Formats: sequence, C-alpha cells, structure tokens
Amino acid sequence: MEIFSYSLAMLGTVAFAVTAVLASSKQGIALFGACVLGIITAIGGGTIRDLTLDVPVFWATDLNYIWVGLAASIATFVATPFFKRKLIHSLMLYIDGLGASLFAIQAMDKVSELQFAMPVGPILLGVITAIGGGVTRDVLAGRKTLIMTRELYATPVLLGCILFSALSHIFPEHRATWATICIAFIFGIRSAAIYWKLSVPDWLMTKTAEDEDH
Amino acid sequence: MEIFSYSLAMLGTVAFAVTAVLASSKQGIALFGACVLGIITAIGGGTIRDLTLDVPVFWATDLNYIWVGLAASIATFVATPFFKRKLIHSLMLYIDGLGASLFAIQAMDKVSELQFAMPVGPILLGVITAIGGGVTRDVLAGRKTLIMTRELYATPVLLGCILFSALSHIFPEHRATWATICIAFIFGIRSAAIYWKLSVPDWLMTKTAEDEDH
Amino acid sequence: MEIFSYSLAMLGTVAFAVTAVLASSKQGIALFGACVLGIITAIGGGTIRDLTLDVPVFWATDLNYIWVGLAASIATFVATPFFKRKLIHSLMLYIDGLGASLFAIQAMDKVSELQFAMPVGPILLGVITAIGGGVTRDVLAGRKTLIMTRELYATPVLLGCILFSALSHIFPEHRATWATICIAFIFGIRSAAIYWKLSVPDWLMTKTAEDEDH
Repeated sequence: MEIFSYSLAMLGTVAFAVTAVLASSKQGIALFGACVLGIITAIGGGTIRDLTLDVPVFWATDLNYIWVGLAASIATFVATPFFKRKLIHSLMLYIDGLGASLFAIQAMDKVSELQFAMPVGPILLGVITAIGGGVTRDVLAGRKTLIMTRELYATPVLLGCILFSALSHIFPEHRATWATICIAFIFGIRSAAIYWKLSVPDWLMTKTAEDEDH
Repeated sequence: MEIFSYSLAMLGTVAFAVTAVLASSKQGIALFGACVLGIITAIGGGTIRDLTLDVPVFWATDLNYIWVGLAASIATFVATPFFKRKLIHSLMLYIDGLGASLFAIQAMDKVSELQFAMPVGPILLGVITAIGGGVTRDVLAGRKTLIMTRELYATPVLLGCILFSALSHIFPEHRATWATICIAFIFGIRSAAIYWKLSVPDWLMTKTAEDEDH
Repeated sequence: MEIFSYSLAMLGTVAFAVTAVLASSKQGIALFGACVLGIITAIGGGTIRDLTLDVPVFWATDLNYIWVGLAASIATFVATPFFKRKLIHSLMLYIDGLGASLFAIQAMDKVSELQFAMPVGPILLGVITAIGGGVTRDVLAGRKTLIMTRELYATPVLLGCILFSALSHIFPEHRATWATICIAFIFGIRSAAIYWKLSVPDWLMTKTAEDEDH
C-alpha cells in the first residue's frame, strides 16, 4: 500500500512537471526556465505547506521528488512535440488531476497528525498543497492564475478535502477508506471536467465588468 | 482594552476580505477564488511576518481570523451589489484603512517583544503585516501591486511605524499611548487620502518613461 | 579575506538595489515602492533560502544589508539621471553580476555546512539566493520574470553552482580555491553576456507558439 501510494506520488510529480513545461512552452522558454517551472509546480505546494507547518521541507529528506521533477522537465523540454501529442497530453492532464487529489489528501493526513489549526488547517493546507505549485508557476510565468480562471480544478479539491475532514471526524475508524474514496471523488470530478470541458458554472461566478458596469 | 482591540482586529479582517472581493469581482471571479483572495488579503501579511519571525502563524491558534475572513468573503460574493453601494463601499475603505493601521502597530509590538532585528525589524514587519496580504492578492489576481501605484496607502503606514518606533524609544513608559496615537495618525492620513482622493505627490515619484526617454 | 568577501557582499547589495530601482524607474514609481523593490531585490533571495533552511534570516543579525540596500535605493531614486549614465549603469550591471556570483557560492557554503538535502540542496538554494530577489522584484513590479526571458543570467549561475559542487566533492581539500574559481567563472560568463549582449541560444529554447502552432 505504502509503495503504491509512493508510486502514485512520483507519477503525480511527473505529471505536474510535464504539464507545467507544456503550458509554458508556447511562450518560448529556455531550458533553465523549463526546469524551474517544472520543479516548482511539482514541489511548490508541499513546500508552502511545510513552511507554514514549520516542519522540514519534504523534498529535503527525499530528493526523488527533485530528481523526478527535473527529469520530467528536461524530457518534456527535449521532446515537446511528443508530449504535445493529443493522447499523451490528455493522459498527462488526467494524471495531473490524480496527483492533485492524492497530494491534497496526503497533506491532510500530515497536517492532522500535527494537530495544526484543527479542523480548518488540514483543509486549508490540503488545498494549498494541491494547487500552490501551479499558482506559483502561473505567477512566475506571468499568466492568469488558477484562482482567477473558471477552470474546475481547485473547487473539486476543496470539496474533496471538506468531505474527507467530515467523514474522518464522524467515522474516525475508517480513515484509510475515506482517504481512498475522497481521492477518487476529486479525481472523478476533475476527470469529468477534463473530458466534458466543464468549467465553474455561472451561478458560482461574480458578474464580469461588462455585465455590471453601466 | 484587550477586547476592544480584538474587536477592531476582527472588523479589520472583515474590511480586508470585503475590499479584496470587491476589487476582484469586476474581473469575474468564481466563489473559490473570491474566498482565496479574501482570506489571503486578511491573513497574508501576518503570515509572512510570522514565517519571517519563525513563530507559529497567528491564525493557527485563533481560527476566528479564518472564519471571519471566509464569512466576509462569501457574504461579499453573494451580495456584491449591496457591498458595492457607495456608502457601504466607502465605509469598507475606511475600515480597511483602520485595519491596516491597527495591524501595523500590533505587529510592531509582537516583533519588539521578540527583539527581532531591532530597531529595523518592527518597522519592516509592521509595514509587511499591513500591506503584505494586499500585495499577495494583487499578484494572484494579476493586478498592478500597491507598490507600483500612486495610492497613498503604504507610505502613511511606513511613516506611522517610524513615528511609533521613535516615540517608544524616546519615551518608553508611554508605549500604549504612542500606539493609539500612531494608529490614529496612519488612519488620519489614509482617511484624508480616501476622502480627498489624494495620491503620492509628484516629487515622491520617479519620472515616467514618457517624461524622460528622449 | 573575510573582510574582502564582506565588502564584496555589500557592493553586491548596492548593485542589486541600484539596478532594481533603475529597472523600475521607467514605470514611474514612488519613493516607497523604490525602497521596497531595492531592498527586496537585495535581500529576497537570501531570505527565501533561510526560510527554506529554517534558520534565522541573515539580515536579522546583520542590519547592514538593510541599511545599505535602503541607502542605495534612496540614492538611486534621488539621483536617477546620474545612475542612468551609460558608464555608471554599465558598472552597476557588472557589479550586479559579481554580486550574484558571490551570493550563490556563499549560499552553497552555508547550505553545505548544514548538510541540507545534499547534494542537490546547495545547488538549488545557491541559484535561489542569487536570483530569488530579482524574480520577486519582477513579480511585484508586474514584469516578465528572469525565468521567462532569454537573458543569460540564471544559467551561468546554475552552471557555476554545479561546477563548485562537483569540484568540492572530488577535491574537498581545495574548497576555498574552487569557490574563488567558480565565482570568477559565473562572473566571467555574465560579463561576456553583458558586454556582447549574449542571450540564451536558440537550441536551449522551446519553439514559440508562432513557430509551432499550425
């Protein structure tokens, strides 16, 4: 089980780095920049979480996250056309969604163990772990961040984190089961959003300036 | 006194979140994004301060800051037209200024107690506590940050912090009085800036490219 | 030797602040903003490094970095035309490059001593120390960050850090010599890049959207 979840984490790291480099490659980016954006996307969220928790950053004791993120970034840089193939790119988007689900719920476990800011802390840092790297990437790349788009990415993560928190509180004996279910829940919504190109519905949006002003 | 200053802090938290959501609502923002921007604006500055000081983040032991920021964000999202009414919006701008004044001086107290980087530390972190959340919000929302605008916001905070540092150094026995006076000082300048739409005067600005190049 | 390297660090701090204010002055910036950008550029990289290492931030125990950064920022703000003179501006660009070289290698020493995430940690944090302040400045100023440009700045720093890591590992007894050589190596490439206006070559860039799409 442990090794299965570790393999998933490494796969998620690959997907985070690959999608980061692909999203930035259109702007014309140097190898150095590709590696920075790939690695930051892969480890950024967990780093913000660990700094907030005041615990050692997770990649300091397990450099695999850095190596895997670096290798995936370089591979995507070198073989951009391959990774841009429709099938590969789609696959990466789904694995990216799976990675986000996994990282969020794993983070909640870490935060809960430390009893940090219960019960809000795990949810808050779960979401930050899942999306913090991508948001930092967008800021550094000068793009619109996830927070300002209609992409259905952060909202399912948030819902899954709230669900996991509620279920673990009510039935604490089945925590491992809830974790699996909530990862599947987030991944399911995210997959549906990728497949059917769903975005945040109108009633969850403020009206834009065009609608409202004058 | 304690409870009075705590109530003011909560009021400031509300105003920070409300003005953040209002400022971003024009761009068309999802509920999730509104909550993120509202909460980050409310707690971002103090979080940067606590990470720099290497002390536990303040909201981990008092979740009211999160709950109040969240509630204010959701309320503003749901009832944007209400909060956009001239009177309510103005009121929020003034309370936002009061919040910034209060957070800056309170932060200086916290930093001084820890004897961190005296005498520069309290001033530096006082300003960061007051404006750090708003700057982070602007970065995430892809807007021009406070630092690059002519808005008279950070400068009065800086002046008030320097004044508090000087007065507390010269007459340490009246520290509480100086705190009240400096909060009033910052809030007074900020209010004047809101009321008369004052901005940073020309002689405190570099010349723009249009003036200077060729 | 110690005092020589300290003087170099102060000179680097001056150059970081001066070039930051000069780069931002075109946008029309207030005195407060100039000081913020100048100081953040000067101390930002080292601050991110120290937060990641979970050690006290370096400027808390040596305020000279703040004072020197502040003085350089104000001087540049007041005497922008002087610092914009071709000779002075060029000189500052070279010293900025020297500062980046020095800060990167000094950071590697600090990180190696703490045995943090060996052998990747020193390289990673060496690069972050050298460019982190400039990247933060660009984000706050709303400019394209270093990471997205073709400027030959970060790549020589990275190469120098890898070289220092390799040489120190193979011949640990000559560490001080390798430090000097690697600082000279980074500064040499950076100087060549400034002098001949070199940028990252095409084969180290992804193709831009114009080349590739359709």
